[in-house]
Amino acid sequence: MSSKKFRPDWTEKAPPDGTYRSIFKYGDPNSFKHPSDAWYEMIKHDFNLSDKDFMSKNKEGLEPVSLKRSVALKAQQIESIQNIVGKENAALDDYSRVKYASGKTAEEMMDLRHGIIREVADVVVHPRDKNDVRDLVAYCNREKIPVTVFSAGSSVNLGCRPARGGVSLVISTHMNKLLEINELNQTVRVQPGMFGPAYEEALNKAPELFGCKKRYTCGHFPQSFEYSTVGGWIVTLGSGQASTYYGDAYDIVFSQEYVTPVGTFKTLDYPATATGPKVNDIMKGSEGAFGILVEVTMKIFLYMPQNRQRFSFMYPTWDAAVNASREIMQSEFGKPAIYRISDPEETDRGLKLYGMPDIVDKFLNLRGFKPMRRCLSLGNVEGDRDYTRLVARKIKAIARKHKAISLTGYATKKWEHTRYTEPYMREDLGDYDIVIDTLEASVTWDNLHRLHQGVRAYVKSRPGTMCMTHASHFYPQGTNLYFVFIAHMKDPEEFRKFQRGIIDSIQQCGGSLSHHHGVGRMIGPWMKTHLGKEQMDVLRTLKKHFDPNGIMNPGGQLGLD
Amino acid sequence: MSSKKFRPDWTEKAPPDGTYRSIFKYGDPNSFKHPSDAWYEMIKHDFNLSDKDFMSKNKEGLEPVSLKRSVALKAQQIESIQNIVGKENAALDDYSRVKYASGKTAEEMMDLRHGIIREVADVVVHPRDKNDVRDLVAYCNREKIPVTVFSAGSSVNLGCRPARGGVSLVISTHMNKLLEINELNQTVRVQPGMFGPAYEEALNKAPELFGCKKRYTCGHFPQSFEYSTVGGWIVTLGSGQASTYYGDAYDIVFSQEYVTPVGTFKTLDYPATATGPKVNDIMKGSEGAFGILVEVTMKIFLYMPQNRQRFSFMYPTWDAAVNASREIMQSEFGKPAIYRISDPEETDRGLKLYGMPDIVDKFLNLRGFKPMRRCLSLGNVEGDRDYTRLVARKIKAIARKHKAISLTGYATKKWEHTRYTEPYMREDLGDYDIVIDTLEASVTWDNLHRLHQGVRAYVKSRPGTMCMTHASHFYPQGTNLYFVFIAHMKDPEEFRKFQRGIIDSIQQCGGSLSHHHGVGRMIGPWMKTHLGKEQMDVLRTLKKHFDPNGIMNPGGQLGLD
Repeated sequence: MSSKKFRPDWTEKAPPDGTYRSIFKYGDPNSFKHPSDAWYEMIKHDFNLSDKDFMSKNKEGLEPVSLKRSVALKAQQIESIQNIVGKENAALDDYSRVKYASGKTAEEMMDLRHGIIREVADVVVHPRDKNDVRDLVAYCNREKIPVTVFSAGSSVNLGCRPARGGVSLVISTHMNKLLEINELNQTVRVQPGMFGPAYEEALNKAPELFGCKKRYTCGHFPQSFEYSTVGGWIVTLGSGQASTYYGDAYDIVFSQEYVTPVGTFKTLDYPATATGPKVNDIMKGSEGAFGILVEVTMKIFLYMPQNRQRFSFMYPTWDAAVNASREIMQSEFGKPAIYRISDPEETDRGLKLYGMPDIVDKFLNLRGFKPMRRCLSLGNVEGDRDYTRLVARKIKAIARKHKAISLTGYATKKWEHTRYTEPYMREDLGDYDIVIDTLEASVTWDNLHRLHQGVRAYVKSRPGTMCMTHASHFYPQGTNLYFVFIAHMKDPEEFRKFQRGIIDSIQQCGGSLSHHHGVGRMIGPWMKTHLGKEQMDVLRTLKKHFDPNGIMNPGGQLGLD
Repeated sequence: MSSKKFRPDWTEKAPPDGTYRSIFKYGDPNSFKHPSDAWYEMIKHDFNLSDKDFMSKNKEGLEPVSLKRSVALKAQQIESIQNIVGKENAALDDYSRVKYASGKTAEEMMDLRHGIIREVADVVVHPRDKNDVRDLVAYCNREKIPVTVFSAGSSVNLGCRPARGGVSLVISTHMNKLLEINELNQTVRVQPGMFGPAYEEALNKAPELFGCKKRYTCGHFPQSFEYSTVGGWIVTLGSGQASTYYGDAYDIVFSQEYVTPVGTFKTLDYPATATGPKVNDIMKGSEGAFGILVEVTMKIFLYMPQNRQRFSFMYPTWDAAVNASREIMQSEFGKPAIYRISDPEETDRGLKLYGMPDIVDKFLNLRGFKPMRRCLSLGNVEGDRDYTRLVARKIKAIARKHKAISLTGYATKKWEHTRYTEPYMREDLGDYDIVIDTLEASVTWDNLHRLHQGVRAYVKSRPGTMCMTHASHFYPQGTNLYFVFIAHMKDPEEFRKFQRGIIDSIQQCGGSLSHHHGVGRMIGPWMKTHLGKEQMDVLRTLKKHFDPNGIMNPGGQLGLD
């Protein structure tokens, strides 16, 4: 068997029911995305591995989940909970308790491969509606039973881990309907557990489904779109891939209804107010620590895919890509929807991943766009037809001014095909002890290079570690940096230490702790230093106000307790 | 003397120093704006008055201010305060105490004309910098001395009234400098007491004054622009006349530094974050009740007046104007900067005020644009040259579709000349017991007509009262309604009752209590009903957190105590 011909036995089978792997596998159990051959060669080269290292898999997590922990709640408490939500909506089995305690961090995946189970809840509850949530929270507050919220479970910061047992409250099982479209206001009332694709499809098909005059789009397409919910976007402050035009989740919310231990309330439906600090905004990003989002009114946008203008460019350097992007964001001719720039390492590895034709590579080299210097940019423009044409034309002119070469809409189209599927590669790589993970931060233009270089230097201080960076959410004042790191690493504890070091490095280089992944329990310990005592005290005060008994997502969420 | 020739003796003299009038007169003491002859005729007609009623003025407030109230603070406290800010920056005289306790509500003007003085502070303090503010707040917190903040004093809701005496802290006297322009980030660090014109001029002249490469604009131009400050815009949640493009004050703030009784902090400089509820946003709109804004970083925009495109239209009906506006705001081709529509009563009275040529009136009538049905719309587009052309073209097309006739940029230009001077007419009218005042609310599209009709019905239930309405701040989800009411009314108490009735009416018809005027002490009593107990409790909790001794703007600000 020659080296050229060998290809690892990438898994093509859905994980068996009841196994650890069925919990940590990303997305559709029957969907897979394998590293390309070029990527496989690159991995072997960078990590100094050979085909031999890919002959057999390690720790696939194919064992049935076995928890062997008793339920700490009293039988009478369980019965009361069952009375509130119905017996069929309160599960006590091992598998449910582990599944609904798990998100999608790399460390959880490594743990579960090793059969390591961290904190779980005693009972997993699936409320049928907001009245169930209200009654359940009131009961748990009286009995001081912790409640941890789970929606789609694609959290990457241990945000749904029931640190103190009690109840895992799963919002997405039943509370996942679109309730009403208001065409005059261009708003939609929706339950928080509705998944991205169902939500977007309902809006796209508004004429057929709701008798609307027009078609709409939600404007929010995070990479986790298929495995995230409307409520999750809001309470973790997510950003979609088209946020540069549509805004972050923070901007797309119109009003919200919350159930908290001290009461239920709905924020007001106004396009703007000057009636003091806005409670509607205070609740965004509260990550279940103040209360539970039970209904939301979102802004929606006209669905006009026929007007979409795609573009992609190769810039000679990272500096050129950054400077052009800043000019685009500050020039006031409108904004692109999707807009991304990749640093040299991501550009080169990405071109391998997507499979750039040799002829294009040769042409780029010939024109002076050299590997490990050149930077890819791609994106699109959405909105009115004349607007998208204008904005695309303006972006092209600025790109040219900064010595970029147009690659037409080709790279964007290629990217669109894989925009939601990148996470699927994690399992394949993990089968051979290769861990891929990401961290991200926001940053002003004047600190972008320091943050980029500082975090890269830290990641690269570990020999043979890949670090790919892109900026993907743009504002006139700055952008985010999204760091993807890949390492050959067996030991979960080694990984944990390394990853915490990256967070330290982001903090030291002046990045925000999170641009759109939220805080959860993973980033919590850095919050006080990051915000400062005075601002952390504001969050603590709000926590104490809404949740005097400390039952809501307790145990470190947002760094609070 | 024939009726035609008679013209009231409108005041053309600056009010003498030390008088009540010198306090309540709006703006530049030497600037005046008199009602046009057509307006004078209209007033006489509508209020059933004759020239005789305008022969002599009532209650001009030309008497010297006389307070005759002792200072409640102890001599030692006064001395301590003087030691902190310097003796020259702590005033105890009657005039200062009254002046810095007064805003620009109609009721304050009526009171002062009658020599009625409401609550005043004991001492008026002008801190030199943020260290002075920090020391003063710490001292007052220890001694439990109330502190009420005053900046430009153009508050229209009793927001700077020192309801419990103590200190009036005047932020605009010394803390009014632009500190730094960051061209990379397009942000500016500025002290909160800087007035609009000085701020805008510094940005326009950034190359000459700060060695910048480009010219900038602040994007925030409220009617009170000349007599309002950057800090006031933020803590009261103001909106500028061009907010439809640039955003409300809420949107233009990048980060803030506050001095509070429990400590000083600066919010973080990031274009976006997902690190929990945003303390930067929680502080906006806090109206001095949580602490004092001592420094702010604002977003700025490219100054490109050469690209400005003006437009104005006459719509056949209010319905047509509203429907066209909604289509413009939801069509996603970009946004106008200034955008306004006037209802039929405001259109007709406005045309009289601005002096529409007879020939235009005849032409409009001939074309079917009838008085008390037709509605004026005007505005402009700012930004990149091609962008402004595109947006103006699109607006024109939508206006035509809704049967509007273009009046070119003429009406906008006329309006621009008076955009900041309308309030000057108040004194002239007040001299003859004619009171002009405004209230405003935000509203979603689906409730606009109910609010408009409901409030008009209430105002019109008082015989002979004018009610002119416009919408001037637009969003895809709705707009604001700005009600201008004019009545012939002598008695301050009658006025107060009438005006409170309008607030009731706004509330009953589902408008917000304030779109951009803030809450102050005037709207405070409605807050609990408006927000509901649960949300009001959030504000109370924050108040208690920042200000445990209740010294910051105490006595009803935001409806808090």
